[in-house]
Amino acid sequence: MFESAELGHRIEKASWDREVPGLRAALLDAQYDLAAAKKFPVVILIAGVDGAGKSAVVSTLNEWMDPRHIQTNGLDEPTDEELERPYMWRYWRLLPPKGKIGIFDGSWYSWPILQRAYGKISGERLDQDMDLVRRFEQMLIDEGALVLKFWMHLSREAQKKRLKKLEADENTRWRVTPRDWRHFKLYDTFREVSERALRDTSTGQAPWIVVEATDARYQKLTVGKVLLEQLRARLDNTAQPRAQVQAPPSIVSIDGVNILQKLDLSRKLEKADYEKQLEEFQGELNLLTRHKRFRDHSVICVFEGQDAAGKGGSIRRITQAVDARFCRIQPVAAPTEEERAQPYLWRFWRHIPRKGRLLIFDRSWYGRVLVERVEGFCSEADWMRAYSEINDFEAQMAKSGTILLKCWLAISKEEQLRRFEERQNTQFKRFKITEEDWRNREKWDAYEAAICDMFDRTSTEIAPWTLVESEDKLYGRIKILKTLCRRIEEAL
Amino acid sequence: MFESAELGHRIEKASWDREVPGLRAALLDAQYDLAAAKKFPVVILIAGVDGAGKSAVVSTLNEWMDPRHIQTNGLDEPTDEELERPYMWRYWRLLPPKGKIGIFDGSWYSWPILQRAYGKISGERLDQDMDLVRRFEQMLIDEGALVLKFWMHLSREAQKKRLKKLEADENTRWRVTPRDWRHFKLYDTFREVSERALRDTSTGQAPWIVVEATDARYQKLTVGKVLLEQLRARLDNTAQPRAQVQAPPSIVSIDGVNILQKLDLSRKLEKADYEKQLEEFQGELNLLTRHKRFRDHSVICVFEGQDAAGKGGSIRRITQAVDARFCRIQPVAAPTEEERAQPYLWRFWRHIPRKGRLLIFDRSWYGRVLVERVEGFCSEADWMRAYSEINDFEAQMAKSGTILLKCWLAISKEEQLRRFEERQNTQFKRFKITEEDWRNREKWDAYEAAICDMFDRTSTEIAPWTLVESEDKLYGRIKILKTLCRRIEEAL
Repeated sequence: MFESAELGHRIEKASWDREVPGLRAALLDAQYDLAAAKKFPVVILIAGVDGAGKSAVVSTLNEWMDPRHIQTNGLDEPTDEELERPYMWRYWRLLPPKGKIGIFDGSWYSWPILQRAYGKISGERLDQDMDLVRRFEQMLIDEGALVLKFWMHLSREAQKKRLKKLEADENTRWRVTPRDWRHFKLYDTFREVSERALRDTSTGQAPWIVVEATDARYQKLTVGKVLLEQLRARLDNTAQPRAQVQAPPSIVSIDGVNILQKLDLSRKLEKADYEKQLEEFQGELNLLTRHKRFRDHSVICVFEGQDAAGKGGSIRRITQAVDARFCRIQPVAAPTEEERAQPYLWRFWRHIPRKGRLLIFDRSWYGRVLVERVEGFCSEADWMRAYSEINDFEAQMAKSGTILLKCWLAISKEEQLRRFEERQNTQFKRFKITEEDWRNREKWDAYEAAICDMFDRTSTEIAPWTLVESEDKLYGRIKILKTLCRRIEEAL
Repeated sequence: MFESAELGHRIEKASWDREVPGLRAALLDAQYDLAAAKKFPVVILIAGVDGAGKSAVVSTLNEWMDPRHIQTNGLDEPTDEELERPYMWRYWRLLPPKGKIGIFDGSWYSWPILQRAYGKISGERLDQDMDLVRRFEQMLIDEGALVLKFWMHLSREAQKKRLKKLEADENTRWRVTPRDWRHFKLYDTFREVSERALRDTSTGQAPWIVVEATDARYQKLTVGKVLLEQLRARLDNTAQPRAQVQAPPSIVSIDGVNILQKLDLSRKLEKADYEKQLEEFQGELNLLTRHKRFRDHSVICVFEGQDAAGKGGSIRRITQAVDARFCRIQPVAAPTEEERAQPYLWRFWRHIPRKGRLLIFDRSWYGRVLVERVEGFCSEADWMRAYSEINDFEAQMAKSGTILLKCWLAISKEEQLRRFEERQNTQFKRFKITEEDWRNREKWDAYEAAICDMFDRTSTEIAPWTLVESEDKLYGRIKILKTLCRRIEEAL
């Protein structure tokens, strides 16, 4: 993998002087077209061995282009707010919006490679991490991002020479830390681990570009030219490359039976029984959220369901039971301008809570495979890939200690009509009913198909769906509270 | 101040049952008008003594209104990301956007009152903190926010009774912590400190509303009714109440001499001298930012100046010298939708860096008193009050250990013309020159008046302006680097 980057590539000063002005002008042009169109973001990773001049390359890119449209992210130790969330949260925070270039000096690769080289994680764990990274990058690409990954390579000898040279010069001595020398001693290990990581993550749409770093002119010119070529190609090719998708089968179930219809909506709870159980489970929920070990977890509840299924009432039965300081409801409405400039899941990632908190999403990322699918707000390719992106998202949350509860509140079409009419006739409830609700109701069957697909594809062991028979509101609320208590209890 | 809240106010159940449905409906109506108009945010503080049912009031408000348009902020200990920034940063983070209601259970008052009651800060310090708070709230009001501050009061006897009652009930026992009893022992001290804080911060536009908390129905109904009345009044009064402003004098200097004209723009540096000094100061800057004590500070550089004065080049001479991982350029462009829904300074607060970081603003909050003033993008009242808001903002940064460098890069009108023409004739510089630059140039004199006003009103001891003679770019760059080094050195 690194052989071509040990050939002693060089660019003479004369040819550098000849080439750079044109390259600069062309890069600026491309950058301005990018900023004007605001169609996609550019994600550039500058990775590689110590002493390979990564920060010099970053500086040069900033110099050749307009730094106002570049976000340079130099990543150091994560903060505690970052540590209390899934690993990728800090990178989601830093993604460039459409029209901008984000340069990552230090990236999602740094930690796994370092940990593996020092033997702190197993090879299997590295593979898992690289799998996560590959899926993340695939998501970026599917969302339209141009992803360019540069690996700056130095042979063992070249690295040693470089570190010594930096150390010899008073002005650059600070760049060489004891850590660099510790890493150097592990050169072969690092090389092996890096090669494994690169091999695993060099995909057709986001290949690694290994650049020999012994000659700074060669290195910078290579990065600049590759960037220009790739950027120009994406800008000029107006037909966005789209992954081919297999159209999903239009027949969901040939006998017309589905999981929603199999629910027993006749389940009921008497008022007295409800009140007793409400008190019991609210008390239990309260105790659980004040448990010492709860501070190592967070809870995310997702509420989805047919309109008027009773989401609001069920949410309130939870919030009543827990300390308001640690609880938050995140209603999901149309994305803002800043959110529209980012990958779909960005607007959910940004709300991921710290440990010890409870967050309730009133509607969620599942909008992608429900309303957006049914109403045609996104392409088939977009909602088809959403299932696996969502599974990845939830897996990451679960891995970081998040307890996930996903509730689908189900009612019959007849019950919905009854509630719609009641809402229209009750003064303080009429804000809950809009024209849109009536329109959605007309598409009941299309929604039902989407809902069943969603269950099949996203009800996983780590994040199962809880189907809540909500024809009787009291029964539904208790089932939710009880399930939430059980899930927290299991986790503690 | 608290006497009227110790009268034993009560609301009977019958009258509660009679009043609540109408109040709910009216609150919902008002809330929906608020959300539809998106003209202003509502900031509600629920403060007061322990055991006064604050969280019950918060829950009730969430129950009476649509919780999707309410952001409830229960504030606990600050995170390390918050601790590394000015005290008010965490509150700026949580401000509700226009059209939403933000409820703060725990607020900017909590910490100073607590600290003072425990004797950890002096009375003078409390006054200072309250002064800061008053100015912050004034800013919110000037930005159009409706600010409602409720103080839940219990007499000594009532508080004791309440805590005991909560403790006696198995379901509410958890609400009473040892801390609550410790606070109770200091009841008189807390009362005294609170009264002082409330007195200091009860202004005409944001008065405290003290509510007796012995009877929950009385308490909730009072909060609900006050909220409805205030919200309705603001919604129905389309003419937004504006503070009267004194028009600024149109004559800046009767002899026509100003600070800009007094600059000696003939200052120059020879190339060889420049290169020597560049190396020297970049090296020094590098060392300073790697100093152990630098980790207790952050640096914010503000670059302002006439178009083509050389901001970009000067910024690059700084970024070249420091570790890219700890350095960031924040270009200031038109505000986004999320930013427009917030007070003016919000979009700068959100970028305030953590300790050990260097952030460069390429243009800044001074846009308010420069381009926005000259072009009439905001009202006279808005830019007039901006001077003191900016001074407060910078004072808070300085207080938290931020080193501020504010540079004004000055060139003559003739030199600007020369550079504009050069830019148009150099291929890779032509992106730097737009129609707007030429239009701004026509308003040179109006800008000059605005610039001089800005110096006079915002060059403070803690955050002085550095006027940089930039006719000779080399001279200007060195002056900036040198000044930056000196300021960091002084702080360490």
